[in-house]
Amino acid sequence: MATPTQQRLSLIDVVNRCDSFPYPSDPRLERLSFLTFIVDEIPCGRIHSSVVPDIVAFNQQDRPVFHITETTISFMPWLADYDSRSDAIAQMLNIWRKDPKSFPSLSGWRDELYGVYTHNTSPLTTKGGAALAIERSACGIFGVHAYGVHMNGYVRTGPRPHEVKMWVARRSATKPTYPGMLDNMVAGGMGFGHSPGYTVLKESMEEATIPIEIARNAVPVGTISYTKLSKDETDSQPETQIVYDLELPADFTPTPCDSEVENFRLWSMDQVLDSIRSGEFKPNCACVCLHFMIRHGVLTPENEPDYLEISQRLNRKLEFPGCKKWPTFKEEH
Amino acid sequence: MATPTQQRLSLIDVVNRCDSFPYPSDPRLERLSFLTFIVDEIPCGRIHSSVVPDIVAFNQQDRPVFHITETTISFMPWLADYDSRSDAIAQMLNIWRKDPKSFPSLSGWRDELYGVYTHNTSPLTTKGGAALAIERSACGIFGVHAYGVHMNGYVRTGPRPHEVKMWVARRSATKPTYPGMLDNMVAGGMGFGHSPGYTVLKESMEEATIPIEIARNAVPVGTISYTKLSKDETDSQPETQIVYDLELPADFTPTPCDSEVENFRLWSMDQVLDSIRSGEFKPNCACVCLHFMIRHGVLTPENEPDYLEISQRLNRKLEFPGCKKWPTFKEEH
Repeated sequence: MATPTQQRLSLIDVVNRCDSFPYPSDPRLERLSFLTFIVDEIPCGRIHSSVVPDIVAFNQQDRPVFHITETTISFMPWLADYDSRSDAIAQMLNIWRKDPKSFPSLSGWRDELYGVYTHNTSPLTTKGGAALAIERSACGIFGVHAYGVHMNGYVRTGPRPHEVKMWVARRSATKPTYPGMLDNMVAGGMGFGHSPGYTVLKESMEEATIPIEIARNAVPVGTISYTKLSKDETDSQPETQIVYDLELPADFTPTPCDSEVENFRLWSMDQVLDSIRSGEFKPNCACVCLHFMIRHGVLTPENEPDYLEISQRLNRKLEFPGCKKWPTFKEEH
Repeated sequence: MATPTQQRLSLIDVVNRCDSFPYPSDPRLERLSFLTFIVDEIPCGRIHSSVVPDIVAFNQQDRPVFHITETTISFMPWLADYDSRSDAIAQMLNIWRKDPKSFPSLSGWRDELYGVYTHNTSPLTTKGGAALAIERSACGIFGVHAYGVHMNGYVRTGPRPHEVKMWVARRSATKPTYPGMLDNMVAGGMGFGHSPGYTVLKESMEEATIPIEIARNAVPVGTISYTKLSKDETDSQPETQIVYDLELPADFTPTPCDSEVENFRLWSMDQVLDSIRSGEFKPNCACVCLHFMIRHGVLTPENEPDYLEISQRLNRKLEFPGCKKWPTFKEEH
């Protein structure tokens, strides 16, 4: 279980914990060894060189699936549509799953697909706009763009935008990732085929027992985007969280519903900032809080020396294409 | 005078008009010819190769001021503090001003300094945290980070955040830059020695006759950042605009005070978006409006296909250091 650190982090340290993949000018980049994952001639992800032997082995089983060069991995031309590509990846992952030592991330298998988008929109070769879909727990192996929603629940304490308290969730001690750490009121990954608006309503009900009449006041207020590099430097995860604000009445209390959340606490912005600086927040949730604090005038150019840099860093320009069209509510219901 | 275009711009086109300097992976970068401007061993700007002969000529007049290599321009070691560096640049610019054909941007001389920051904080060599200061109209020649404030004035029309109208300014037809184009309610450059909070109050009074009791409700809500490349591709301008929102009572009308603004109009968000798409807004003001529309839930992931990309592009990660400490109000008054 992650424990709070004694040190006080700067807010740039906090961003760096989430957006940890080196930028082009960073000398750390030189020691990394990734190949580019190419789909429809568009770079869509990155795969660590240590995975290449496993891909080569899979490729030799049957009709070759991947074209592998020194710097790139792409599909063979006969895998030209959503179904054939998604099936090939799924077959390979089902073999890899049996070897949890080599692929520890697959031990968190979710049975949930994430779409990969190339901006090829041909209905003959794509599904829901996606060129293929990959099991959620494997997205970091392919370094493809993943998506989620995070929602700030807040209560006004005065007329000015910074006069607010925020509902903070404590993650369950039994969660496989970041157990016991602090989280936004509502957050969840966005599986293939779901829209951000649908996902935030579903997660609001599942995680915090927020009735639909209240949850539908959630407002999309932007995104945070970043690329995580795993500690062993073999998995990379470009990710966008679509951020929502939900103003709650003072007499409403969110309640844990599934087993994901230990409890909810209504904290002052000072308490939130203090816990961010002591490293108690899950890193991307800390960034969602900073995004909130900037939008609400809690952090200002005058009170935070790294204000300009934080504003820039909360929205990393991701190298790979993102989804341009989500299913609408009508398609889902 | 700029005229509205007949075409309908995508919102990414709108961002591209403001953030026009190519990104590292862009092939347009290859045809550009800039040297890096280095101060205190830190890259702080870029200078076009066509300017180098003029720098060499100035360097030969007296004791050499600049150390020039094939790819960099830096100060000679004897110019180690704010005063000597600022004076040297000012002397050179006063010669260049007499040649408006070679330096057209200097014909807009402002007599206003912009600070250049290297994160060297020695009080012996800096002033107000700056390693030097440069005349505002010359910042694009040196490609150093410039700063401004922009304020959205809005009126609520309903309880939901997207239910708002926005005050839009029409720039005076006699303004030297972007005459007759649409602008945010209040905007202005941030001269050296002023804080964002002071600048936004000053501009509110000067440009829109907003009384201090109302203007002080302005809330800092983030930044936009971008790098402009001039049409002739010889000037580059990395810039941060600190963005404020000011909610106005329905019975308040801003009034032009100085000669900068032709008129103010209270527009629906549809009207604002329509004018953005037809190219009627000054490019960076259009981006400030998009930033507002994202924060207020006017643009959503479901109604705007480029939502993710716009969110990322509105805060370009600038290559050069930004200001970390502005003067406080107490220092100014």
